Amino acid sequence: MTDKIAQKIESLGLTLPDAPAPVGSYLNCVRTGNQLHISGGLPFTAEEKIQGVVPTETSVEDAQRGARHVVLNRLAVAKGELGSLDKITRVVSISGFVSSKPDFYDHPVVINAASDLLVEIFGDAGKHSRVAMGVAALPMNASVEISMILEVA
Amino acid sequence: MTDKIAQKIESLGLTLPDAPAPVGSYLNCVRTGNQLHISGGLPFTAEEKIQGVVPTETSVEDAQRGARHVVLNRLAVAKGELGSLDKITRVVSISGFVSSKPDFYDHPVVINAASDLLVEIFGDAGKHSRVAMGVAALPMNASVEISMILEVA
Amino acid sequence: MTDKIAQKIESLGLTLPDAPAPVGSYLNCVRTGNQLHISGGLPFTAEEKIQGVVPTETSVEDAQRGARHVVLNRLAVAKGELGSLDKITRVVSISGFVSSKPDFYDHPVVINAASDLLVEIFGDAGKHSRVAMGVAALPMNASVEISMILEVA
Repeated sequence: MTDKIAQKIESLGLTLPDAPAPVGSYLNCVRTGNQLHISGGLPFTAEEKIQGVVPTETSVEDAQRGARHVVLNRLAVAKGELGSLDKITRVVSISGFVSSKPDFYDHPVVINAASDLLVEIFGDAGKHSRVAMGVAALPMNASVEISMILEVA
Repeated sequence: MTDKIAQKIESLGLTLPDAPAPVGSYLNCVRTGNQLHISGGLPFTAEEKIQGVVPTETSVEDAQRGARHVVLNRLAVAKGELGSLDKITRVVSISGFVSSKPDFYDHPVVINAASDLLVEIFGDAGKHSRVAMGVAALPMNASVEISMILEVA
Repeated sequence: MTDKIAQKIESLGLTLPDAPAPVGSYLNCVRTGNQLHISGGLPFTAEEKIQGVVPTETSVEDAQRGARHVVLNRLAVAKGELGSLDKITRVVSISGFVSSKPDFYDHPVVINAASDLLVEIFGDAGKHSRVAMGVAALPMNASVEISMILEVA
């Protein structure tokens, strides 16, 4: 099966990780009709865990790198489910949650790192609707959590 | 109309409550196509209200019991809408919000209680995608709020 | 193209603003099948920005006015996408996030202002499912953020 999107990711110098195990008794994704609902992902890789409240414990820049980690591990989930990322016809929406001090308001700047990467990878099909906000705390002290709804062929 | 799922709930020693009234000017659920969008439910029963921030005002164990209360009152909503829970073909996603101290990170442990119960009740059809997080405060000082998207026949 | 809903909005003495630019690298909305997913909107108009934590920095009444601002700017987004608001067959769900002190629990009272306005405008088709909660902080220090899923013809 061809996977031009996976090739595109490689051409950007990025690597799809293995899809991480869910951190609880749920699935990484569920398909219903033409929608693939992908569970909230965390900014953890084999090399680093982006943890702590933004911006005091984690910088905006580190949280942005974390947001990109989440995009890649969410796409790894999609590839595992679909076989090929070419079956994704549209990124419909992403929900971006930032572990946030009550006086931090730049959640869009953090989540833009995810949004920009999706557009780099998918082009126009990567342009999505979005909510972004700051929450009190995230699972495993993650700095960022992002869930997605994808439209699939 | 048969309702094997309702019988399964009884066989687990559980009781579907009456669907609670919404706590505002909205509906408990709306169907669109094959999706039933169920509003956020609170962990309140005729016997108890699970309120307060986790883990200082409410223990993880109490919040877990609250998460199970929400599953049952959300399924009561679905039964009221659909007539029979057998019409649910899949639990697509749940969103679990925990009233959380900023240094509490075990939201997945709380929401697992809801996820596990859904799988006990529905089997494979109950396996779902999920987001879980800690928020600053919930309506009526609830400890847990959970919304759901169900796929229906 | 007729737009009875836009006329209804005018008859209520309200004005659809220009759709605001997204505050990041995303789109105001994405359509998939019969669903229009509308990004989280903020309570900012040409005249005022409703900012700050509820209820200490912003009153419940001001936050309610903000919630109504968001409804109007979200409907402006929908009109830009659809041409006519008459193509909206149902408001499926809204997610209402309030910048909230940890001991504030009346998020439903704030978000009711949005829910009530949707029903004033759309009648029965405006009745929706909902989640409402208090979060640590919102983009640009907004007091309220609301996203929506609409069913469209």
